[in-house]
Amino acid sequence: MTSDASEKPFVTRRERGGRLARREMRSHGAQGPGRPYVVRNIPTYDILSDENLIRIEETADRILAEIGIEFRDDPVALDHWRRAGAKVDGVLVRFEPGMLRDILKTAPPEFTQHARNPAKSVRIGGGGVVFSPAYGSPFVMDLDKGRRYGTIEDFENFVKLAQSSPWLHHSGGTICEPVDVPVNKRHLDMVYAHIRYSDRAFMGSVTSESRAEDSIDMARLVFGRAFVEENCVILGNVNVNSPLVWDGTMTLALRAYARANQCAVVVPFILGGAMGPVTNAGAIAQSLAETMAGCALAQLERPGAPVIFGNFLSSMSLRSGSPTFGTPEPAIGSMVIGQLARRLNLPLRCSGNFTTSKLPDAQAMNESTMSMLAAIHCGANFILHSAGFLDGLLSMSYEKFVMDADFCGALHTYLDGVKIDDNQLALDAFREVGPGSHFFGCGHTMANYETAFWDSEIADNEPFEKWEAAGSEDAALRANKLWKRRLAEYEAPPLDEAIDEALRDFMARRKAETADAWY
Amino acid sequence: MTSDASEKPFVTRRERGGRLARREMRSHGAQGPGRPYVVRNIPTYDILSDENLIRIEETADRILAEIGIEFRDDPVALDHWRRAGAKVDGVLVRFEPGMLRDILKTAPPEFTQHARNPAKSVRIGGGGVVFSPAYGSPFVMDLDKGRRYGTIEDFENFVKLAQSSPWLHHSGGTICEPVDVPVNKRHLDMVYAHIRYSDRAFMGSVTSESRAEDSIDMARLVFGRAFVEENCVILGNVNVNSPLVWDGTMTLALRAYARANQCAVVVPFILGGAMGPVTNAGAIAQSLAETMAGCALAQLERPGAPVIFGNFLSSMSLRSGSPTFGTPEPAIGSMVIGQLARRLNLPLRCSGNFTTSKLPDAQAMNESTMSMLAAIHCGANFILHSAGFLDGLLSMSYEKFVMDADFCGALHTYLDGVKIDDNQLALDAFREVGPGSHFFGCGHTMANYETAFWDSEIADNEPFEKWEAAGSEDAALRANKLWKRRLAEYEAPPLDEAIDEALRDFMARRKAETADAWY
Repeated sequence: MTSDASEKPFVTRRERGGRLARREMRSHGAQGPGRPYVVRNIPTYDILSDENLIRIEETADRILAEIGIEFRDDPVALDHWRRAGAKVDGVLVRFEPGMLRDILKTAPPEFTQHARNPAKSVRIGGGGVVFSPAYGSPFVMDLDKGRRYGTIEDFENFVKLAQSSPWLHHSGGTICEPVDVPVNKRHLDMVYAHIRYSDRAFMGSVTSESRAEDSIDMARLVFGRAFVEENCVILGNVNVNSPLVWDGTMTLALRAYARANQCAVVVPFILGGAMGPVTNAGAIAQSLAETMAGCALAQLERPGAPVIFGNFLSSMSLRSGSPTFGTPEPAIGSMVIGQLARRLNLPLRCSGNFTTSKLPDAQAMNESTMSMLAAIHCGANFILHSAGFLDGLLSMSYEKFVMDADFCGALHTYLDGVKIDDNQLALDAFREVGPGSHFFGCGHTMANYETAFWDSEIADNEPFEKWEAAGSEDAALRANKLWKRRLAEYEAPPLDEAIDEALRDFMARRKAETADAWY
Repeated sequence: MTSDASEKPFVTRRERGGRLARREMRSHGAQGPGRPYVVRNIPTYDILSDENLIRIEETADRILAEIGIEFRDDPVALDHWRRAGAKVDGVLVRFEPGMLRDILKTAPPEFTQHARNPAKSVRIGGGGVVFSPAYGSPFVMDLDKGRRYGTIEDFENFVKLAQSSPWLHHSGGTICEPVDVPVNKRHLDMVYAHIRYSDRAFMGSVTSESRAEDSIDMARLVFGRAFVEENCVILGNVNVNSPLVWDGTMTLALRAYARANQCAVVVPFILGGAMGPVTNAGAIAQSLAETMAGCALAQLERPGAPVIFGNFLSSMSLRSGSPTFGTPEPAIGSMVIGQLARRLNLPLRCSGNFTTSKLPDAQAMNESTMSMLAAIHCGANFILHSAGFLDGLLSMSYEKFVMDADFCGALHTYLDGVKIDDNQLALDAFREVGPGSHFFGCGHTMANYETAFWDSEIADNEPFEKWEAAGSEDAALRANKLWKRRLAEYEAPPLDEAIDEALRDFMARRKAETADAWY
């Protein structure tokens, strides 16, 4: 169990102070400083009745009891299930109704993931909302060079862009695949980039048990072994092989995180009609069953280890068979998933800025906005894929990244809701202005205007003539200029030299131990 | 009061039949036929507690009682208020708390607006959601010719595009200003275009009492005088001159609609910091006060006349003073307005596809989607500005129109929510497929796939390579092709020749009675 009594990682004393604070203010630009994460001041949007939620839960329970889930290539996981009283038949595991819910009672409903800059630690669960960049694209894109495979330079660029945005809260994980680094070694470079170029919380590798352990070991070099034993400092995002299969690669990584008291984000990716039923309610029930099994396995590995209840629902173009993202069915599904996660009392990962568009265009932001607002409304606590997602997650876009980050800023204001007090209700302003006048220079406006409205860095609100005279730029072109300016102005947060050296030594040693592998 | 016992306008018998039905199917394209309107199957999103709603209502009551509203250039309105017991002091009218709420009790909570094709009549109020095109732009835009003043040809084109979309439900009103027609006569051409080129419900003029009456007279030629006396067949959208002023032009038009038992949509346009306080809660209280006064005036003119509780909240760029649209504050404000309208038991008009972008780009759809989803979540019954809005409502865009209409299609699916029954929960599909297989060809998929997922006409879901080989088009270019195809394929719905002739005669007579005026 993570302990909030000891929330001071040992880097604290080195990273505070006036110089850093000033730099932080500057890096936030005209918007003023951001917050380490958002605490929602609007309710969740609960669309289903308890009665219908119970029907979904009963379906999940029947899937788990009557059909079961396979746990492949992980005998230890099967041992855990046997000891817990599940029916294990070869690799097929079946669960009595209610059994997984009981196991899940040891999982913390919320926890802190510590950042190496303690001012940027994030609270995951409850009313907390954490925006984290998109994850996992093999390609990157920008308006100048188009689409190409990602490299470690691209990876570092995106870490820097995330760090530069006051509206993201987390450095993410595999922001893009750095395909110029050997497959069996790139996790080291990715984790190092997160630590070196960001002072926010981050995610580690899950593509094998040893890579998960390497990631956690690197976090130990930053935070200290004892601190990591008691506190969450790294997340690993593990996927179910839907339908109803957990592969050993994933459960070994999941158990590695849990064993170290670190957090596994448990995520079925269900493309309705392919990895799950074509009907939304069935896909939701499946997602619930698969996620409960994964989260429960983490609890069996180490009771009290933090877990995040994740999901990734998607639909399909029934003309072409292509996956679709940012469509209405998964948006609605997210709201239901949110209700189910709250009934389990678990932190929630849900949805993000999803789209299949190949450009940062109207389609991209229509789909992303619908998808992202679903994440906001459903009560998601950790929103992976908050920035950069294009091309059905195959490409990380530089322009889309800064657009999405800007939208995350708007969502800070949205999540703040509406404040009701005498100043906000403004009766004095009406007395001052009266009928038929205007509020431009009135005392109430002057006292409140600086904090009144969200002010986007991407949107152009100028009159047409002024916009035209300035070159008739669209949002994509403005985003292109913004990410270049952000990278040019980027300054790395300070990192203790001894830690940096220890990380480099660790990486060099680990890289020397095995030959490069490209598969 | 509108009567639902007599819902058959006299055009019925002429407009049904196999040929028309087939044409209607074709005009709906691959999507299948649309619905006359949507009945929501998801709850409203209620973000404020009753306690905070009451604080807003109390503030509105104090604005009405202590500051008051001016009713200018309309002595009859002042007489109405005097008789109702308000304090009338010159043009300033003040209201005892609760007085307007009492008057509003005669307003119908929901009503049918009849279309000349009865299959397309819309239910306004309750769970009904009606999408209507944007309203009031002086300019039009397309990718080929850029921005220019609107003409009657543009106006007719937009009526045709609305009629061609299965996802819009209403023909709207002043879709764009036809500036090539004299100001004092263009209302005749606009109303005629709605009747001639669409068989859906529509809106009339409000720019003077006589133009409002002309609009209603033309509706009488279509539906018959007796039918119009008992049923709503035309809407008029009247604006408050915020803050706290009702101009005679608007109240005369409002009363003309009410007198004829037709519906006034009562809409304050409040740009926070200009026409209202810079704080959201204050702007909401003001909107409530102004709308209640307008709706109550309609009830005093004719108790039981249908009214729609409208609002149009907007924020401001505090760097440039420009209005902004599609930002988070008005989106949140819409949710509160929705709660307030329901407490008054009145049908609601709220928000729409708002944006300040000058192009159908990423900004346009990011802002529009946030704004439109607010309309959906807040429980809006009549959504003006559902399609075409660009440039802060100064331009009607051909491309944005078809993009927005497509998004309205996605919102049909969204509003349908998630269905919970045995087929949707799909337990049999899991039994059939089991762990580690796929659902592509399984019986459950085959039985459900045709109706499974929303299928956009604008979005490109193809793999990158296929999209690139097809020309790397963005959403705006696809929309450009789509509106041209729609116009080319457009077929006018049949219109009785005697009615057409009567309308033309009426217009000719009215046009001959006065000289052209261009102001």
